[in-house]
Amino acid sequence: MEASTKPVLYTYFRSSCSWRVRIALALKGLAYDSAPVNLVKDGGQQLSPEFQAVNPMKQVPVLRIDGITLSQSLAIIEYLEETRPNPRILPQDPKTRAQVRMISDHIVTGIQPLQNLSVLQQMGEKKLDWAQSCISSGFEGHMVTMADLCLVPQVYNAERYKVDLTPYPTIRRINKALLELEAFQISHPSRQPDTPPELKV
Amino acid sequence: MEASTKPVLYTYFRSSCSWRVRIALALKGLAYDSAPVNLVKDGGQQLSPEFQAVNPMKQVPVLRIDGITLSQSLAIIEYLEETRPNPRILPQDPKTRAQVRMISDHIVTGIQPLQNLSVLQQMGEKKLDWAQSCISSGFEGHMVTMADLCLVPQVYNAERYKVDLTPYPTIRRINKALLELEAFQISHPSRQPDTPPELKV
Repeated sequence: MEASTKPVLYTYFRSSCSWRVRIALALKGLAYDSAPVNLVKDGGQQLSPEFQAVNPMKQVPVLRIDGITLSQSLAIIEYLEETRPNPRILPQDPKTRAQVRMISDHIVTGIQPLQNLSVLQQMGEKKLDWAQSCISSGFEGHMVTMADLCLVPQVYNAERYKVDLTPYPTIRRINKALLELEAFQISHPSRQPDTPPELKV
Repeated sequence: MEASTKPVLYTYFRSSCSWRVRIALALKGLAYDSAPVNLVKDGGQQLSPEFQAVNPMKQVPVLRIDGITLSQSLAIIEYLEETRPNPRILPQDPKTRAQVRMISDHIVTGIQPLQNLSVLQQMGEKKLDWAQSCISSGFEGHMVTMADLCLVPQVYNAERYKVDLTPYPTIRRINKALLELEAFQISHPSRQPDTPPELKV
């Protein structure tokens, strides 16, 4: 495969891990081809021999780019940041970078639906304020970071599982502001090539 | 807190997340003070008001370093790599770095004991070979990477939960080789300040 080939993203419209990568690709203005993998249809298309040849871990997202095949959303996002640094989604100061990674990891290690809820509840109001104050002190202006790429799909899942978000005004405010941005809109589960017609907006 | 103060690691001897960070500190030759947090004693010392003031997420490891307080093992390790790059634990080539992060994330997102097992089983023989072949093609010599820091504590957990490792000779071989290294030995759960006497070796 040539490094100049358009990247291919194996994705599922509703997967929060896929969505994180879609936001990163959109923020960086990278054109790519979608290869939808339906995690529920046909007993899970990720289990097919064809897809296992792409990713033996049987998970989306997978990004084929620059002649390599990458899985794990944060590893993919870090690669995009290192090879396509504009616009940046990690601050340049190592201490602030560390705090962005800390929040990202905290969200991402809650992969399973059940954990998704508990992670959000763990984040809570006081704790998110704490995290935000860590971060905002290091920021100039309003930079969208890797942590934001993790937060929005997490809130989407929480809403899907009917978690009451009224106790978390800070999370809701940040989420709302991010959803105004084009990168978060065009990557949204409701607007993907594999979104079922009844879920499209 | 002065940047020149010795780092403090809040750690639990048996925590695989703590062990990852202990290995990184040892590889980089960084002296630090241990602040043991017993996750089972007193109903879990991580729940105490004193520790929650350190980390509202109520988890170890936490590293106080350079005037900041960091949690999440991989965020801590990335920070150490950025601020103390010698010796490197991430390769310099972005593609190889991505593959090391991919394997690390794959292991680390399996936090819970139950997942620990399934992650290792998912890694399996064929898949680890795949991962290894991805990586070794990019390496010169035998570099210890972030992925190795994740692998060894994972295998330790698997042994603790009596997972049969005979089907995974590659994992066993790599694990054995890594355990010969001093950084993996001095950071081992059996040799920590908070290791109970009956578990010390």
